Amino acid sequence: MSIAIIAPYKKDIPVWKDTFHKLAPTIPLEVYPEIENPEEVETVVVWQHPHGILRDYPNLKLICSMGSGVDHIVADPKLPSGVPVTRIVDPRLTYSMTNYVIMGILNYHRQFTRYQRDKLDKTWDMSSPEIDIAVGVLGTGQLGGDVLDKLAAIGIPAYGYGNSPKEGFRHPYYHGDALDKFLEKVNVVVCLLPLTEKTEGFLNKELFARFKPGTYLINVARGKHLIEEDLVLALSKGWISGALLDVFVQEPLPKEHPFWDHPQIMITPHIACITMYEAAVPQILENHRRQLANEPLSNEIDLSQGY
Amino acid sequence: MSIAIIAPYKKDIPVWKDTFHKLAPTIPLEVYPEIENPEEVETVVVWQHPHGILRDYPNLKLICSMGSGVDHIVADPKLPSGVPVTRIVDPRLTYSMTNYVIMGILNYHRQFTRYQRDKLDKTWDMSSPEIDIAVGVLGTGQLGGDVLDKLAAIGIPAYGYGNSPKEGFRHPYYHGDALDKFLEKVNVVVCLLPLTEKTEGFLNKELFARFKPGTYLINVARGKHLIEEDLVLALSKGWISGALLDVFVQEPLPKEHPFWDHPQIMITPHIACITMYEAAVPQILENHRRQLANEPLSNEIDLSQGY
Repeated sequence: MSIAIIAPYKKDIPVWKDTFHKLAPTIPLEVYPEIENPEEVETVVVWQHPHGILRDYPNLKLICSMGSGVDHIVADPKLPSGVPVTRIVDPRLTYSMTNYVIMGILNYHRQFTRYQRDKLDKTWDMSSPEIDIAVGVLGTGQLGGDVLDKLAAIGIPAYGYGNSPKEGFRHPYYHGDALDKFLEKVNVVVCLLPLTEKTEGFLNKELFARFKPGTYLINVARGKHLIEEDLVLALSKGWISGALLDVFVQEPLPKEHPFWDHPQIMITPHIACITMYEAAVPQILENHRRQLANEPLSNEIDLSQGY
Repeated sequence: MSIAIIAPYKKDIPVWKDTFHKLAPTIPLEVYPEIENPEEVETVVVWQHPHGILRDYPNLKLICSMGSGVDHIVADPKLPSGVPVTRIVDPRLTYSMTNYVIMGILNYHRQFTRYQRDKLDKTWDMSSPEIDIAVGVLGTGQLGGDVLDKLAAIGIPAYGYGNSPKEGFRHPYYHGDALDKFLEKVNVVVCLLPLTEKTEGFLNKELFARFKPGTYLINVARGKHLIEEDLVLALSKGWISGALLDVFVQEPLPKEHPFWDHPQIMITPHIACITMYEAAVPQILENHRRQLANEPLSNEIDLSQGY
């Protein structure tokens, strides 16, 4: 009976190990690739695991994502069937993400970077001090829903868009073919989609050409939602007036990437929302306990939907 | 029976005149200093009027500020006694102000300017991605109260401070001598005080020395709340880590002013909240009508308090 961490690209595994040892000193913990007793592994704690390897654990009962995203798990074509998958839902993580998104929206609305340029020039220009905004949020799950809640609370018009119908959703909501109706309402678009086969590359030039001219784009979901060269094109065409990006196809963003020097693109290093091991480990341990006790899991994902 | 506009330093008087003429074509309108019939003036619409001159209108019944602030009116030692004073309260104006303040708070919290610097250096640094914040709002009237409401709505801890006790105020509130108790709770201070004799120069080095080291300062009230050289001192001492200022003792801020080149001070040109004549003129006309009809005024100020 053990827990195994499988996250070969994560750099902070020592603090995860320490936290597991501190909170559950009696549960054996192994770390991939040095797993000595695969048949003992009941719970795997994963982030970007090598596809196919989860079948090496014959007694696997639970797969826990180390973060909010689960696309890296469901993308595995050899995912063991019948094993539940859970994700981390952390109010602090939602707080961070929503604050980041509202920061980006308000910087556009109140033109923060315009006034930064004016300061460099010692220019005092009081004309047109704000841009009227209406925000569209792509993806209305835990994170997108919270962004919509908080925008409504501060009085900023906001609309949600998603794949499926949502009866009785608490905010104006469009889905499927109503994309153009959604886009004509908004001049700020925030991507908080889950990464699935259907949403990969969703932020592309065909979509950008349908934006209201000069729409502002914020991507805080996954790098692969965006066709990166299409953003550069959309900026040059004026379809998009600026973008705030926290996620990229390749991270860290390579030094030679054109985004670094693009004046209309603001970059942050995947910090909008991080999973803090202090918050995640207790959730994982609790689900591990519940699964062994045959109790309902918290934050289990629906594998048929992929999120 | 006429209305007179007295705002010698305002540059946009033509649009105010047009709006009055459009909404009330039958009411005679005069503009200082070309007032031909002072005895006809019943309502004055003022912004930074020359002190003493309001006594030149023997039949004056109403003094309307052209904005939210009334300090420029109550500062007149020769204000005609017994004449009510009103201010503009505009939901759109509150919306602009609150959005500006939240923008400043979130830029500090999520370290927007740090990531801008990192972008210039092509630095990908994921460490310590946010600063924990608790916000103190000096002044809890219309504008300060709205900022507290919106901060609470998005889950940011916030505390109010004012001059007088406020029984049953809807947010944690400190007053008078409890200033140190208030300051020890917060690491972001927002000034939304009214400008009175008591609050002029309130933001000074004695106050800054009592801040939690590294507190972030936002002043969106009046330039004269701040002793400007004391801010430069407080930044050099580390009492304050940075400041966002929208108002200054002299506006436009003179080109030789040290704030322009200070890396820890961000400047905007008094645009956090402007009074839009479209919103203000109907309010002024309605109070003019009410005063002549002996009906209760809206947004009348309490002259004994000065706000």
